[in-house]
Amino acid sequence: MNNGSIGIFDSGFGGLTVLSEVAKLFTKENIIYFGDVARSPYGPKSKETIIKYALEISKFLFNQGVKIIVIACNTASSCALEVLQEEYSIPIIGVIQPGAEEAVRITKNYKIGVIGTEGTINNNVYNRIIKSLNKEMQVVSQPCPLFVSLVEEGWVDTEVTHLIAKEYLSSLKENQVDTLILGCTHYPLLKDVIQKVMGKDVFLIDSATTVANKVKSILEEQNILSSKESSGNIRFYVSDEPSRFVRIGERFLDKEIRVITQIDISGMLEKGR
Amino acid sequence: MNNGSIGIFDSGFGGLTVLSEVAKLFTKENIIYFGDVARSPYGPKSKETIIKYALEISKFLFNQGVKIIVIACNTASSCALEVLQEEYSIPIIGVIQPGAEEAVRITKNYKIGVIGTEGTINNNVYNRIIKSLNKEMQVVSQPCPLFVSLVEEGWVDTEVTHLIAKEYLSSLKENQVDTLILGCTHYPLLKDVIQKVMGKDVFLIDSATTVANKVKSILEEQNILSSKESSGNIRFYVSDEPSRFVRIGERFLDKEIRVITQIDISGMLEKGR
Repeated sequence: MNNGSIGIFDSGFGGLTVLSEVAKLFTKENIIYFGDVARSPYGPKSKETIIKYALEISKFLFNQGVKIIVIACNTASSCALEVLQEEYSIPIIGVIQPGAEEAVRITKNYKIGVIGTEGTINNNVYNRIIKSLNKEMQVVSQPCPLFVSLVEEGWVDTEVTHLIAKEYLSSLKENQVDTLILGCTHYPLLKDVIQKVMGKDVFLIDSATTVANKVKSILEEQNILSSKESSGNIRFYVSDEPSRFVRIGERFLDKEIRVITQIDISGMLEKGR
Repeated sequence: MNNGSIGIFDSGFGGLTVLSEVAKLFTKENIIYFGDVARSPYGPKSKETIIKYALEISKFLFNQGVKIIVIACNTASSCALEVLQEEYSIPIIGVIQPGAEEAVRITKNYKIGVIGTEGTINNNVYNRIIKSLNKEMQVVSQPCPLFVSLVEEGWVDTEVTHLIAKEYLSSLKENQVDTLILGCTHYPLLKDVIQKVMGKDVFLIDSATTVANKVKSILEEQNILSSKESSGNIRFYVSDEPSRFVRIGERFLDKEIRVITQIDISGMLEKGR
């Protein structure tokens, strides 16, 4: 038993799709969510910079007494997971591995598509993990940088969104992938459009669900579930003024964001514990 | 005479449209350009955060011995111009005032349109400045958050760009503005599409040109032009790994980026001079 919180972080809003699934599975756990909106998006930034940001945020979460950290951002998972695992003894999980495992389990024709930010795709991490699970798999990747802006603008089902999706997804269709990993935590909000463009027979893998299940199995295996009887609470922290986070975040979560605090995260590594 | 450099900064690439115009006017001046790509974009961030970033960058430029600072970013100009002017005794100019003055000079029907990022538009700064110049002016504003992503993705003349422009610009057309301020330094790259959607009789004001002229008049009035006979050089600094900046930046500048250095800008205010 461990009554510490579950820590979840992302560059901004995307991780809220993960938070949403985690909160459904654990009604008695406290959850702390950190959104690095002062420095988002992470997608176009370098590995070195992302690692620095991830270390700063993890230190903050660790100081809050979390018992597990979920990197609910594909870019940060692909760049910083191993560094954080070396730095901390508590379990740290990313969104890449669970989605990759699920895809390998599901594909019938061994052709897996992956879409994500420039950072995630250029990093080639899905390709490496999928091939390490089964070297016969063929992976077709496509960066979709405009998808994040579309989601944040709230254009999830417009003619423009459909056209952009058709443009980005054409090479995946041509290559006849039967399974498509939504390799960015923003993309579940575009699921309908993506499914329409890809066709109903293509299986979409939404990392939010697979990661929530992973958190569950770790907490159970390590016997660190909460012993509380009352329901858990969710606290939000952001690195910039909260109003825009609340406005867009409530669209992601489909519920009210009540307890939210702004903190200065840059320079966290130099600050004392 | 003053052989210090002209300092120009932006959240990322947009300011390169300003740099380009400045470099055309001054062949003998040294120019330092800073692009804060590790924390871009500034558009969706709060005023307080933007001011902090702008103070850090100005300190860096000041330490490099610049004789004038151009805030080549509308969001940063609208949030931080006055704070920087109080902090430093060298001339500091933004991109808002020159564009607003030009619009007031040009409009015939006193209906001026302004497009920009959410930060710039919500700040209402163009409206205030234009009304202070002539209170009979009517200002119609529209945030266009997807434009920046489109430009950085290189989609400057696609069907999608045209559709998005039609959607964003419809209220400006309905209100029959005869002059439109491109209130974001990325937007000059979308000039053709914007002109097509607005119609050929609407006058587009590109702040890059108006700001370059302003720099010229200040250097002349204050008698601080360079006395060098040889041609000036341009040095680039960025807050993240430079390869993406070089790739996209060369599209903005239409020439090669040679001398570029990555520096750690966060925490600059705490560092000694």
